[in-house]
Amino acid sequence: MAGTNRSREEEARDLCLDPALVPRVILVEPQMGENIGATARAMLNCGLTDLYLVKPRDGWPNPKAEAMSSGAFAKMGDPALHEDFSAAIADCSTVYATTARSRDLVKPVLTARAAATDMVARIQRGEKIALVFGGERAGLDNEDIARCDLLITVPLNPAFSSLNLGQAVLLVCYEWMQAACLEENPAIQTPTGESPPVTKADFEHFFNRLEENLEIGGYFKEDNLKRTTLRNLRAMLTRMAPTDQEIRSLHGMISALIRQRNKVDHE
Amino acid sequence: MAGTNRSREEEARDLCLDPALVPRVILVEPQMGENIGATARAMLNCGLTDLYLVKPRDGWPNPKAEAMSSGAFAKMGDPALHEDFSAAIADCSTVYATTARSRDLVKPVLTARAAATDMVARIQRGEKIALVFGGERAGLDNEDIARCDLLITVPLNPAFSSLNLGQAVLLVCYEWMQAACLEENPAIQTPTGESPPVTKADFEHFFNRLEENLEIGGYFKEDNLKRTTLRNLRAMLTRMAPTDQEIRSLHGMISALIRQRNKVDHE
Repeated sequence: MAGTNRSREEEARDLCLDPALVPRVILVEPQMGENIGATARAMLNCGLTDLYLVKPRDGWPNPKAEAMSSGAFAKMGDPALHEDFSAAIADCSTVYATTARSRDLVKPVLTARAAATDMVARIQRGEKIALVFGGERAGLDNEDIARCDLLITVPLNPAFSSLNLGQAVLLVCYEWMQAACLEENPAIQTPTGESPPVTKADFEHFFNRLEENLEIGGYFKEDNLKRTTLRNLRAMLTRMAPTDQEIRSLHGMISALIRQRNKVDHE
Repeated sequence: MAGTNRSREEEARDLCLDPALVPRVILVEPQMGENIGATARAMLNCGLTDLYLVKPRDGWPNPKAEAMSSGAFAKMGDPALHEDFSAAIADCSTVYATTARSRDLVKPVLTARAAATDMVARIQRGEKIALVFGGERAGLDNEDIARCDLLITVPLNPAFSSLNLGQAVLLVCYEWMQAACLEENPAIQTPTGESPPVTKADFEHFFNRLEENLEIGGYFKEDNLKRTTLRNLRAMLTRMAPTDQEIRSLHGMISALIRQRNKVDHE
């Protein structure tokens, strides 16, 4: 990805939105339409649009699925229907099965997070991959799991691991999207609204006025501590990262507080 | 945490399961019992047990909530009920609000993942923290957001960001659990020295004193703007994340500024 003129953001956007480049989600023998709808909603939230259903109990179309999808199907299209799991994965090169139990099959097991990183790397190499989820009652059977390459486990509270199908899909797809699109985003940004951050000069002007008025009010009781006190005060105000507008408000507060000359402190 | 004989896994397990050491989840004016139940289920999946409800529309007990919890309430106990958001966060030192919009309040915004790392660091320093979610229809109002320290955003498909309340809780709690139990935690930012962060109750006491003295000084020129002015002021001071010691210093500054009755402002 290095060496091009395209930004990482542009590449990430493509990775998320090109249906050919995102993982397929396959539900094998899903029962409740609600969970199919929740799956579609979870997928589209995470930029995925390629949904396959293998032998859905109630067929398709399914009004309960559409009701639960929050409009996802209208944007991503109807799911593809298959009678056979093998057919649903025929064009894929790596298939991940999400299952709570290892069922004695010797397969590599990855956490959802580790799997997401693995998926992104494979997609970047041009692989088509699929994420497979079993039905509500029995999950995936051993025959199906045997066709998968890797197992995904979602690490949860050992004393209470209780995800329904839609929730499991959401967590796995969410991890994929974080890995694909958002890994290198700066963690913290503080929107400052309309007002720009105060300039250092204006901050100093405010700080000096505050110091002067604190001095007049007898705030600095011992001269040798004044320097430390001011440093701590500066650290606190700097941490606040005030905007220009906020510094004007703080000026107004000083004016208001020193104005009340004949009033009583209400502490 | 280094230098002991206990495994990282043992420490992580403690961090997850001790109710005193896990984040509190607060739902403000939740409407549907189903979402309260889904919240409890999501929490317990991620090792969280401390649920507060502020003015739940349908009161408590709520049969729909219990039905949707998959038995979570039986293990974690009933939620605590509060009439007032301030009371629900009074003993917390850092409060995270999950909201889709920034609503023009200047607050740091963290991704759910970055927030999780931040939470773990704070908990390791002994802080009590809370995760706040608004009701289904309107989310959190600006008055509530102004009382929070940091905003959490869940990065999703910009073309389709559609999480219900239970799903949002699941993703935020999931990220917490991954950070707390399952990852190498890059430790700490912003060491606060000897002094712990101020409690919300002590912060309120300070804020009320400041407001009272600003009122006396004629700071609030137009009555209809007072509410907005106070909200912005609260946002600014909350963003500073003052320690207990710093709040004492700020009290001292108010005292000093209102003491200088016969002096002249040196602006």
